[in-house]
Amino acid sequence: MSRDIRIVTEAQLREVVSLDLETVDVIEAAFRALAGGGVVMPPILSMAIEEAHGEVDVKTAYVPGFDGFAIKVSPGFFDNPKIGLPSLNGLMILFSATTGLVETVFLDNGYLTDIRTAAAGAVAARHLAPSDVAVAGVIGTGLQARLQMQAAHLVRPFDRCLVWGRDPARAASCAADIAAATGAQAEVMTCPASLCEQSQLVVTTTPATEPILTAEMLHGGLHVTAMGSDQGGKNELAPQALARADLYACDRVSQCETLGELRAARAAGLMPDTPPELGEIITGMATGRTHDAQITICDLTGTGVQDTAIATHVAARLGGAGTVIPV
Amino acid sequence: MSRDIRIVTEAQLREVVSLDLETVDVIEAAFRALAGGGVVMPPILSMAIEEAHGEVDVKTAYVPGFDGFAIKVSPGFFDNPKIGLPSLNGLMILFSATTGLVETVFLDNGYLTDIRTAAAGAVAARHLAPSDVAVAGVIGTGLQARLQMQAAHLVRPFDRCLVWGRDPARAASCAADIAAATGAQAEVMTCPASLCEQSQLVVTTTPATEPILTAEMLHGGLHVTAMGSDQGGKNELAPQALARADLYACDRVSQCETLGELRAARAAGLMPDTPPELGEIITGMATGRTHDAQITICDLTGTGVQDTAIATHVAARLGGAGTVIPV
Repeated sequence: MSRDIRIVTEAQLREVVSLDLETVDVIEAAFRALAGGGVVMPPILSMAIEEAHGEVDVKTAYVPGFDGFAIKVSPGFFDNPKIGLPSLNGLMILFSATTGLVETVFLDNGYLTDIRTAAAGAVAARHLAPSDVAVAGVIGTGLQARLQMQAAHLVRPFDRCLVWGRDPARAASCAADIAAATGAQAEVMTCPASLCEQSQLVVTTTPATEPILTAEMLHGGLHVTAMGSDQGGKNELAPQALARADLYACDRVSQCETLGELRAARAAGLMPDTPPELGEIITGMATGRTHDAQITICDLTGTGVQDTAIATHVAARLGGAGTVIPV
Repeated sequence: MSRDIRIVTEAQLREVVSLDLETVDVIEAAFRALAGGGVVMPPILSMAIEEAHGEVDVKTAYVPGFDGFAIKVSPGFFDNPKIGLPSLNGLMILFSATTGLVETVFLDNGYLTDIRTAAAGAVAARHLAPSDVAVAGVIGTGLQARLQMQAAHLVRPFDRCLVWGRDPARAASCAADIAAATGAQAEVMTCPASLCEQSQLVVTTTPATEPILTAEMLHGGLHVTAMGSDQGGKNELAPQALARADLYACDRVSQCETLGELRAARAAGLMPDTPPELGEIITGMATGRTHDAQITICDLTGTGVQDTAIATHVAARLGGAGTVIPV
């Protein structure tokens, strides 16, 4: 029996899906589904290729009620920029959840991951940031720094954006891009402490292995989303910062205790209890921010549920895009 | 920077690679590499979708010296035959081992897995079966029963083939196919015991969850390859059979103790020592069969190294086959 598999490139995807409120809602639905039970999400398959300074992660999740499930392969080869190639690449595959047949291969070079990751930051901000955010700050100056601010602006339309990174020139370039994308005034800060002091919302987007944001930088009325750590060796927030927050939530406890900020906090003997997940806060199963003066933290490691949600959403909007291969 | 990704279908693959001695040698090289060290092979990612009576496995391995590494996705949805679809499907993706970029997507519906799995059986027979095999037996009547006998015949050109399965009609069909593929005389047996009694080489290819082959069925001068079990719940050989053999070897100890025959034997309190791996026997790091009257068993669960080996081998032979997608 012949059937068709659709192959879709990054350029084709960029024409049908972008980082907007609809995408944020799709990812919010993924977090709701994760909290609703019945989701099957195995641990991430992770392989390091030390000779090439590379790694590859595979994520997947089955979500009841979704027609398909995605399997995403994300290679990161960190010497690539030396030869003019991006570090992050990969593809996403959408399978039928009833037959297991391959339906669509997204040769997206990580584009869908970029926007579903940024959209998760917006979901965290929507449900945990103070109601008014005049100033947002971002620590880190890569693509996600830009996208996280763009996403946060959709749900908390701040007027000013503060940027800090180790390299001031990269920070300036990042600030200019954020200003262009959001219309906010964007400026480079000289240290994370002053960035936090002036912000009501801070997103950390670095691959740091030593904490950048300390407990002393927190203040009432601040929400922090830490999305940089997705591996056992990474750590952006000091353990004491988690302990100081009025509320610490994460995307998936089982992932965050090994790959997220919770890992270092637990290793330091802090945060022994099971924290709420973002999906539980969204659905009301757990309590979120109760007043604007609280300090909240959300720890995002990225879940296969987000991949399944974005892939099924995009597949439904493809129309005739892509190359059909009869198999 | 634009680059090309090649998409290759099952039909195109069947024109460039088949189950022959060259493929057996490719898979033998994979086992050698696995024994040689430096291989990175993470645990299999496995997800069950109970609502659809389905499962999906993802395997990968990095093998030093290979230009690429494969990631293979194997869905098995066991209600598919009711609607005229095969249970097993999937695809394999070949990535550059130096940049992590996607190079080739094999929409193979499991074809490469079928032949690399059968080829592993031939490698086991080549290194562990008695030197003369006049009669080979196969337990199970599916595609792998056929392919395992076809592969075994490449390295031990037997004259007779015995087939047993629960359904005599399916066994007869399987025997006819094996006779046609190998030129051997093939006949259906009434029980596994008589099949073993007459054979010098037996391959078990079933999804059994209770042992089919018992210790009493073993006899001097017999080699058994058990390739059906690849999950925690499966079990083809009685624990006492493993204990009775003069030599038990497996493809990967860390997999076989959770997914292979070794699991049930360990659960029964048997086989406490670390067994040799097939690659160690091939390379001479471990001792294999030392005389023809011994009883040997090889437990194959299937490794990502085989996938990486077959994918890189096939990619080098593609020529202009497939559809090139610029990304």
